[in-house]
Amino acid sequence: MNSNWHEEAYYTIRTYEIDSKKQATLPALVKLMHESAMQHVIKLGVSVWDLEPHHISWVLMRQQLSVHRLPRLGEQIKIETYPSGYERLFTYRDYKVYDAAGELIAHSSSTWVLMDTVQRSLARFPGFILEMLQLAPAPELCLPRPAGQLPKMEKTDHSLDFVVRWHDLDYNDHLNNMYYLQWMLEALPDELLNHGRLRAFDIQYRAEAQWKDQVRAEVQHLPNGRMLHRLVRPDDGKELALALSEWE
Amino acid sequence: MNSNWHEEAYYTIRTYEIDSKKQATLPALVKLMHESAMQHVIKLGVSVWDLEPHHISWVLMRQQLSVHRLPRLGEQIKIETYPSGYERLFTYRDYKVYDAAGELIAHSSSTWVLMDTVQRSLARFPGFILEMLQLAPAPELCLPRPAGQLPKMEKTDHSLDFVVRWHDLDYNDHLNNMYYLQWMLEALPDELLNHGRLRAFDIQYRAEAQWKDQVRAEVQHLPNGRMLHRLVRPDDGKELALALSEWE
Repeated sequence: MNSNWHEEAYYTIRTYEIDSKKQATLPALVKLMHESAMQHVIKLGVSVWDLEPHHISWVLMRQQLSVHRLPRLGEQIKIETYPSGYERLFTYRDYKVYDAAGELIAHSSSTWVLMDTVQRSLARFPGFILEMLQLAPAPELCLPRPAGQLPKMEKTDHSLDFVVRWHDLDYNDHLNNMYYLQWMLEALPDELLNHGRLRAFDIQYRAEAQWKDQVRAEVQHLPNGRMLHRLVRPDDGKELALALSEWE
Repeated sequence: MNSNWHEEAYYTIRTYEIDSKKQATLPALVKLMHESAMQHVIKLGVSVWDLEPHHISWVLMRQQLSVHRLPRLGEQIKIETYPSGYERLFTYRDYKVYDAAGELIAHSSSTWVLMDTVQRSLARFPGFILEMLQLAPAPELCLPRPAGQLPKMEKTDHSLDFVVRWHDLDYNDHLNNMYYLQWMLEALPDELLNHGRLRAFDIQYRAEAQWKDQVRAEVQHLPNGRMLHRLVRPDDGKELALALSEWE
């Protein structure tokens, strides 16, 4: 098998990635997962910058995360990531986070599409992308693909307003994916933010946000320690993302 | 000389540290400078966590930065940092950022004090801190210490409001130093944020900000491509920081 099929990236948790309990925050860990995937596609020659001349770009549609524990300051983690197959216009990518003892401490599957940046519509996979997607391990070695409907939000128990700032933009001048998740967490009750133990986070990305957009994070309490999250742009009512979180 | 006198830390610029020009943002570079210093004091046994039982803590008072160029995506940089002497209740620390060719691309001097966390007043340096401070190289090998008064702000040409969010807090539950600088930059005119080339940034930290504090960033245009910055907490009028930036 081509040795490029996966990326193994090593990171040591830095002081700016932790909270006052010396534990990495979830957004910090997700940033490192995305970084490992970016390094992989850069090596494979299919990064967003490689795709620019083809007027196509990767768009993250969904990410399902499971967290067994968050790593601590100074801990070395290994993140393994690989494309985990495709189906029609959708492609999948897995992430596995291991601690130094080789224990799996978090994992995630994700769904991606290619966007035609001129037509603003979904694009088919060109040959050189299909080649990369063939690298996927056998389906039984991959994590279950993101699936299932998120419940519909019926009321808002908490909300918090944000404005997209220049430093919140990614290399593509859109609100960085990671802030969707971070802002959803910010709207939670204080007690949960300070002391909650997150077990799972399942986020569906619906639309991009631009510099200076107003964004509202809404939360609804569900039974059994679950929370429903929504990011909406009040100016046009556009739903930017939906998510479900599970807490211990 | 004790080999611990300085820290040499290597970093590769990550995709979440860059703007759409594939260049590290200033806050991203400053984060790495602080990270290198944190790693140094952890090794020396004088980190904020080591100081907790002594009821003292490091507080950054001032940082003067010079930027020749910002590193680009994938570039490996070396950050050298060391304590650069002390005087009465003040201690100094230098940072030098080199590219892979060994060129100095940014440097910074900074002023720190020890805060008595019970009395909320400046603390004298205990013996084990003085030992560490003896490691400083000869003064002629160090960068010039931060000095000079910043001009007084006379009018507000631009301003922008922020709220301290949970993920903006540092390991000490205060607004992370780096966001002072980032929020000051955010209040600049769009043209400067997008296309300006920053040459120097001189920031004086005056007060801590807490979770949920409102913070206003104010900017005044000065002659010769210089900008005056202020962070203020509108609720009590408290000035949190002052800064002067220089642009090409």
